[in-house]
Amino acid sequence: MSVTYAQGFSAAGVTAGISAIKGKKDLALVVNNGPLDAAAGVFTSNRFCAAPVQWSRKAVANGHIKAVILNSGGANACTGEAGYRQSETTAATVASLVGVEPSDIAVCSTGLIGELLPLDKVLDGAKAACAALADTSEAGADASHAIMTTDTKPKTVTLDGTGYRIGGMVKGSGMIAPQLATMLCVITTDAVVSAGQLQAALSAGVNTSFNRIDVDGCMSTNDTVLLLASGASGIEPDPDEFNDLVAAACASLARQIIGDGEGASHDIRIAVTGATSEEAALACARAVAASNLLKCAISGNDPNWGRIVSSLGTVPSDIAPYDPTKVTVDVNGVRICEHGGAGRDRSEVDMTPREVHIDIDLNAGDAEATVWTDDLTHEYVHINADYES
Amino acid sequence: MSVTYAQGFSAAGVTAGISAIKGKKDLALVVNNGPLDAAAGVFTSNRFCAAPVQWSRKAVANGHIKAVILNSGGANACTGEAGYRQSETTAATVASLVGVEPSDIAVCSTGLIGELLPLDKVLDGAKAACAALADTSEAGADASHAIMTTDTKPKTVTLDGTGYRIGGMVKGSGMIAPQLATMLCVITTDAVVSAGQLQAALSAGVNTSFNRIDVDGCMSTNDTVLLLASGASGIEPDPDEFNDLVAAACASLARQIIGDGEGASHDIRIAVTGATSEEAALACARAVAASNLLKCAISGNDPNWGRIVSSLGTVPSDIAPYDPTKVTVDVNGVRICEHGGAGRDRSEVDMTPREVHIDIDLNAGDAEATVWTDDLTHEYVHINADYES
Repeated sequence: MSVTYAQGFSAAGVTAGISAIKGKKDLALVVNNGPLDAAAGVFTSNRFCAAPVQWSRKAVANGHIKAVILNSGGANACTGEAGYRQSETTAATVASLVGVEPSDIAVCSTGLIGELLPLDKVLDGAKAACAALADTSEAGADASHAIMTTDTKPKTVTLDGTGYRIGGMVKGSGMIAPQLATMLCVITTDAVVSAGQLQAALSAGVNTSFNRIDVDGCMSTNDTVLLLASGASGIEPDPDEFNDLVAAACASLARQIIGDGEGASHDIRIAVTGATSEEAALACARAVAASNLLKCAISGNDPNWGRIVSSLGTVPSDIAPYDPTKVTVDVNGVRICEHGGAGRDRSEVDMTPREVHIDIDLNAGDAEATVWTDDLTHEYVHINADYES
Repeated sequence: MSVTYAQGFSAAGVTAGISAIKGKKDLALVVNNGPLDAAAGVFTSNRFCAAPVQWSRKAVANGHIKAVILNSGGANACTGEAGYRQSETTAATVASLVGVEPSDIAVCSTGLIGELLPLDKVLDGAKAACAALADTSEAGADASHAIMTTDTKPKTVTLDGTGYRIGGMVKGSGMIAPQLATMLCVITTDAVVSAGQLQAALSAGVNTSFNRIDVDGCMSTNDTVLLLASGASGIEPDPDEFNDLVAAACASLARQIIGDGEGASHDIRIAVTGATSEEAALACARAVAASNLLKCAISGNDPNWGRIVSSLGTVPSDIAPYDPTKVTVDVNGVRICEHGGAGRDRSEVDMTPREVHIDIDLNAGDAEATVWTDDLTHEYVHINADYES
């Protein structure tokens, strides 16, 4: 279903032979059939951003996008002028197929950094995808499969507003990864909204979702989140409802990335409350989420609060003022750390659920923030050390 | 040898029954027999710093320390007032044994966070260690064994100045770890130097050694580096030579930590040159050293330059100005990334040596910095997920 759930969108996912996995669908096309073509985007801030990011950032700047072409099997990052020309040529080819201008086409790529794409295969794939375009749920599903890399399952969302719909798809394998787990996301809506409304809703939604999953300091060269509106429902949405739904779509897709994290055996929710500001809460949650030692402990089903508070203790006091002797930590509802020291015995914590909830109360204020991460497992190392890249 | 290489120091390492490993030496004592008792210290900045850190920071503040007692088997961190009283009582016991004041005694602990020490065993161990004190190389070696936790080998250094000596020992298992790999270090010298000179030399030495190994944003609750001077050689050293030797001792011990990193199969040296400032070079080197994906790739013998430049790309341009299209990356001498894109084929890189040299030239200025880290292996996850903590 995914991106075709909203009216006015057709999609396709085809096997273009770009991916090293023989027969895998690796090229997706999403077309906005209007009447509107409003669009918004959020992109990686990585200074080595990929050619398709450079292209798409320019294309979406005027608030109009008619179609998005996405490929797995190659990131087209760190490929210089030649790489940029590949994105440009790809956009021009799709534009002529769809009957619009190249500047109306967004391009997204994911896969290995540093190599050019097999352009002939991409362009042939674009033609095949154009021929296969449909507004069916199957076509939406095909597109969501075509963007997968190390993902083990497609990730999609559908939501209903008052008289309008939102659909979306994302790829990304949880642990933030500058190469194989590059995150690409396309969200569609048939609501009647302006590009400005879309950008505001998307920026706010991304901020509390994709920007709060995992945190190892790495960011991808290719991360792209696009929001397209066709206006096909004819409904001008209530702004608050629309913003909430876009945020909910982002949150659902972000949560699915964590649920499919590379090698993960636990999805970890880190909620920091009692902070003096949201920024302080977020800094603390990110510090805990970045601890390899904690992630290892969780994979071993050990609710190791020492590794939680020692990570908390690295956040400078000017960023997050709190008194270490007043901090409490609950893991899956058991207060194993109280007054910054040992609380109830950690053997009381049930670590069998896939979800692990770490609730940290700084007891310093009223602000809070939540970050999601995955545990660090043998399988993660296997995927990222032993697989051919 | 270690701390007893410098004249005027005696040491001991005994089995006190604190460690869970039966029969392991787990308590060390280092005594400065003078005539001087000058001392300097550098401690963790973790806000959940351990009781012994709180005690020793105060003890060393006046520039005088007569003895250091160190235990493995328990960090005495996040143990509140009761933990602080344990450090205090330990210092008082050692003081009465040695015949000095409690404030002349530094205390260091390493092991599990959140539990009090078995104080009777610590105090009995202190007595046994005091009885075993000797200025022999064997006694120094015993002390360096007693502070080991997940370390697979003792780490020591001996250096000769003009008429004076420096000796040292450290424990720490490479990957920075807030719990089991807590770093403790004692360096001794028989040079005639003031506490002020010691502190200046130590702070500078730590800054370019222990502060530049690994970087996962975690810092220990117990990290302690002490430098003690006995003056027993009667030699007032040339200040530059002395500073250089202290820095060399720190660098040697830091390098040994990397060489014994938890589960590591490669020691990775990341040298960033051509930066506009040392701070910029250091920020870039730290960003690369913090990438789990790169660490995994190296453990799989894959010189994955895409994971190097995408980490570089996360450093904001106001911190490290450079042009991504001018960056080069050499791995073990092969320029696999040129102009921010693909260079020579990475199959040319010989990844068989334990040491991996990543040389990054930003081509933006003349400043440089080097950081060491380890690769991320199955064994690291095993040590930190599957072992009982």
